[in-house]
Amino acid sequence: MADQLEQLNETIELLSDLLHSGQDTEFIESFESLHDFEMAQVYAELPAQFRSVAWRLLSDDVLARVFDNLDVDEVDIVTLLQEMPPQRGARILQEMYADNAADLLQEMPARLVATYLSLIPKDEANVIRKLINYDDQTAGSLMSTEYLAVEEDLHVDEVMRLVKKQALEAESISYVYVLDSQDQLTGVISLRDLLTHSDDLAVSEITKDRIVSVKAGDDQEDVAQIVADYNFLSIPVTDDNNRLLGVITVDDIVDVIDEEAVEDYSGLAAVNVSQINDTPWHSAVKRIPWLIALLLLGMTTATLISSYDDLVRRASILAAFISLITGTAGNAGTQALALAVRRIAVGSEQTGWKDFLSEIVAGIIVGIATGVSVFTIVAVWKQNTMLGVAVGLAMTMAIIVANLAGYLIPVVIDKIGFDPAVASGPFITTLSDLTSVLIYFSVAQLFIAHFVGG
Amino acid sequence: MADQLEQLNETIELLSDLLHSGQDTEFIESFESLHDFEMAQVYAELPAQFRSVAWRLLSDDVLARVFDNLDVDEVDIVTLLQEMPPQRGARILQEMYADNAADLLQEMPARLVATYLSLIPKDEANVIRKLINYDDQTAGSLMSTEYLAVEEDLHVDEVMRLVKKQALEAESISYVYVLDSQDQLTGVISLRDLLTHSDDLAVSEITKDRIVSVKAGDDQEDVAQIVADYNFLSIPVTDDNNRLLGVITVDDIVDVIDEEAVEDYSGLAAVNVSQINDTPWHSAVKRIPWLIALLLLGMTTATLISSYDDLVRRASILAAFISLITGTAGNAGTQALALAVRRIAVGSEQTGWKDFLSEIVAGIIVGIATGVSVFTIVAVWKQNTMLGVAVGLAMTMAIIVANLAGYLIPVVIDKIGFDPAVASGPFITTLSDLTSVLIYFSVAQLFIAHFVGG
Repeated sequence: MADQLEQLNETIELLSDLLHSGQDTEFIESFESLHDFEMAQVYAELPAQFRSVAWRLLSDDVLARVFDNLDVDEVDIVTLLQEMPPQRGARILQEMYADNAADLLQEMPARLVATYLSLIPKDEANVIRKLINYDDQTAGSLMSTEYLAVEEDLHVDEVMRLVKKQALEAESISYVYVLDSQDQLTGVISLRDLLTHSDDLAVSEITKDRIVSVKAGDDQEDVAQIVADYNFLSIPVTDDNNRLLGVITVDDIVDVIDEEAVEDYSGLAAVNVSQINDTPWHSAVKRIPWLIALLLLGMTTATLISSYDDLVRRASILAAFISLITGTAGNAGTQALALAVRRIAVGSEQTGWKDFLSEIVAGIIVGIATGVSVFTIVAVWKQNTMLGVAVGLAMTMAIIVANLAGYLIPVVIDKIGFDPAVASGPFITTLSDLTSVLIYFSVAQLFIAHFVGG
Repeated sequence: MADQLEQLNETIELLSDLLHSGQDTEFIESFESLHDFEMAQVYAELPAQFRSVAWRLLSDDVLARVFDNLDVDEVDIVTLLQEMPPQRGARILQEMYADNAADLLQEMPARLVATYLSLIPKDEANVIRKLINYDDQTAGSLMSTEYLAVEEDLHVDEVMRLVKKQALEAESISYVYVLDSQDQLTGVISLRDLLTHSDDLAVSEITKDRIVSVKAGDDQEDVAQIVADYNFLSIPVTDDNNRLLGVITVDDIVDVIDEEAVEDYSGLAAVNVSQINDTPWHSAVKRIPWLIALLLLGMTTATLISSYDDLVRRASILAAFISLITGTAGNAGTQALALAVRRIAVGSEQTGWKDFLSEIVAGIIVGIATGVSVFTIVAVWKQNTMLGVAVGLAMTMAIIVANLAGYLIPVVIDKIGFDPAVASGPFITTLSDLTSVLIYFSVAQLFIAHFVGG
C-alpha cells in the first residue's frame, strides 16, 4: 500500500513536470498509458493549476474514464467537474457510463443537475434521469444501461459482429443478452461460448434460458449475495414485465460487499468507520452523540444501584463484583448480537422458533459454565461459599438475559424493517448493565444473611 | 433468499423423481441445464442413494464443474468425492481448475492426497502439488494456473485463434498475458481490445506494458484491495523473477473480501460468526473460552475494587457510578478500536505520529464532552457539586485512557505482525474496566472529604 502511494506521488510529480515544461504531447501519452484507476487518482491529486491545463489537453473519452473511476465518497467530484465549462462537463457526463454519471449528478444540487442534463442530448439525458430516480442501495441504482443485447434467431458470426461493434461502449462484454420483440429477456449467451463455437451455429444452441436476474427494486445486499454465489461477472436487471433495464457488473458488487461489511462493523462498534480520515474534531463530534445517549441509559443503572444503597452499606464487598458481572454479561450479549446480525445478513434459514430455542440453550450453557467458574474463584478467594453462590448465580442469570437480549434485539429490528446492524454492541452492553445490576442486587438481597457475618 | 431455497428444493425433488423412475436421459439434460452453482447445490443435497446413480450418469466435465463450485467450508466435499472410486475421483480432480482441486485436497488427510495425486498424470499432479504448498491467505493459494498466455510479436488474428482454442480451459478469458522467452510477464492484452481491433494489427500496439501484478506470497487482503481499486476481472501472480505463475479471478476476490469482513467482525465481537449453523452445544463451547479469559481479567478489576473497601464503606454512593464509568469508557474504547482496525485494514496513510496525535485529540474532546455531561447530571440529581466534579473528572480521564488503549492495541498488534482484528471489543472493554476503576477510585479518594458530609 505504501509502495502504491509512493508510486502515485512520483507519477504526479512527473506529469506536473511535463505540463510545467510545456511537453504537452508527452503528458498526454504518459497519462493515457496509466490504468483508469491510476488516471483518476492522479487527476484528482494534480495541483489545481496543472489540472486546468490537463483537462484542456485530454480528450472527452479519457476524461470520462477519469470520472468513471473517481469515488464519489472520497473525492469532491462535483468541484472537479465544475472546473470545466458546463458544455465540456456535459460532454464528459455523456461519455461516462450512465450509472456513474447518475451517481455523480446525485452529488449535485438540483439546479446544477438541471443545467447539465439540459446540455446532454435528450435520449441520453432521459436514461440518466431514470437512473437517478432509483432508490439508493437498490439494484436499479447500481445498474449500467450499456450492455450487449441481440434479438433471437441469429448465428454466432452475426452476434460476434454485433459484439465487436458494441464492445467499446458496453460496461461488460462477458455476456450477451437475448431479447424478444417486446424487449423481454429470454436468454443469455456467454462470450466464452461464442468464441468456442463455429460461426454458422444458431445461437439458440448456446443460449441459456435458465436466467438468473434481479428486479430494479431489489436490495443491493441480496443482489451481491447472488453474484457471489453464482460467480457471475454481471447480472441482468429487469422490470416487473421481465423487460431488460440494465446490468450490474461485478466491480460494483465488490464495492457493495465492502460497503455492507463496513456498515455492519460500524454498527457493532457504534461509530461510522467509513470516515477514517476525519479531523480529530469531526471524528469526536460523530462519536459523542452515541456516547451521550448510552450515558443516559447508563444513568438508569446508576440510579438503580443507588437505590440499593442500604445493601451496599451492609456488605461493601458487593461493590467489588459489579463491573465483573456487568462486563461479562455484556461480552456474552455482544457475542449473541454479532451472531444474530450475521445470521440475518446471510439470509440463513429463518426457522424462527428453532433459532430462538437454539440460542436460549447456548445462552444457558454459557451462563452455567461461566457462573460455576465465578463461584469457584470467589468461594476460594474470599473463603466465603455463600458469597460465591450469590455471585455465581447472579452471573449465570445475567448472562442468560444478556444473551437473549443480544439475540432478540437485532431480530426484532429486522422484523420491523430496519437494518439490524444498527443494534450496536455498546447499546447491548449498556442495556445489559441495567438488567445485570438488577439481577445481581436481587440475588444478593436474598443471600445477604448467609454471607455477611452477623 | 427464501425463494431461492424453495426453488432449490423443488429442483432436487424433480431430479430425484427422474432418477427414481429411470429417466436417465431426462435427468442428465435437466441437470446440465442448471447453472454451475445450482448443480453444486443440488448435487450436494441429493439423497445419497440418488447421488450414487447421478455420478455414474454424469460426465467428468460436469462433475468437475460441480466440485469446482462446492464451498469447502460449507460442504463435506471430501466425503462426496470418496463416494466414487479413487480412479473416478482423480479424473474429476484433474478436470477441475487446479486451484479448486488444491483447495479440495487440502481438506484431506495426507495419505489420501498421495493416493489421488498418484492417479493423476504427473505434470498436472505437480501443478496441484505446488498450489497446495502456498500458505493459506496468500495470493499463491488463490491463483488459478489455467490462464491465457501468448508470446510477443503476434497479430490480433493469431492471438484470437489461441484464445478460441484455450477459452474452454482458462478460468478467465478477459485478459491475455504476454510472456517473453523466459516466461517473464511483459504485457497484458484485454479481450475487449482484441475484439475491437483489426485482424492484421500487431498486438504490441494494444498491449499494456504497465502491468499491475502481485507476488505469490502477498497477503490476500492486499490483493483484494488492488483488484477492488482497479476494477480488474483478474490479476496476474508472478514469482520474484517476474515469471507468471497464475492468475486470481474476481470471483475469488469477492470471497476474500467477504471472508476478511467476517474475520474483522468476529474479532470485534470476540466470537467466530462464520459458523452460524452450529448446534447450541458447539456454539456455546466456542464462546466460553473467550468469556472465561475475559472473566479472569475482570477478576483483577474486582480485586482492585475490593482493595478500596474502606472508601466504599465511607461513601457507598460511589458504588452507583462504577458501571456508568466503566461502561462509558468501554464504549469509547470500542469506537477507537474499530476505527483503528479499519484504518489498518484499508492501508490508510500510516503517518504514525500524526494518526496518534489525531486520536489523542479526538479522545480528549470526547472525554471532556462526556465528563461535563456527567458532572451536570450528577450535580443536579444528587445536589452534590463536588461529587459531580469527582465523577465527571474520573469519567473524562477514564475515556481518554480507554480511547488511547483502543487505538494503540490494534496498532501494536499489527506492528508485531498479527492481524489487528484479534483485538476484540470485549477485550478492550474488560481491560478498560480495570483502568477506569483505578482512575475512578483514585479521584474519589482525593475528593472524598469534599463530597461526604461530616
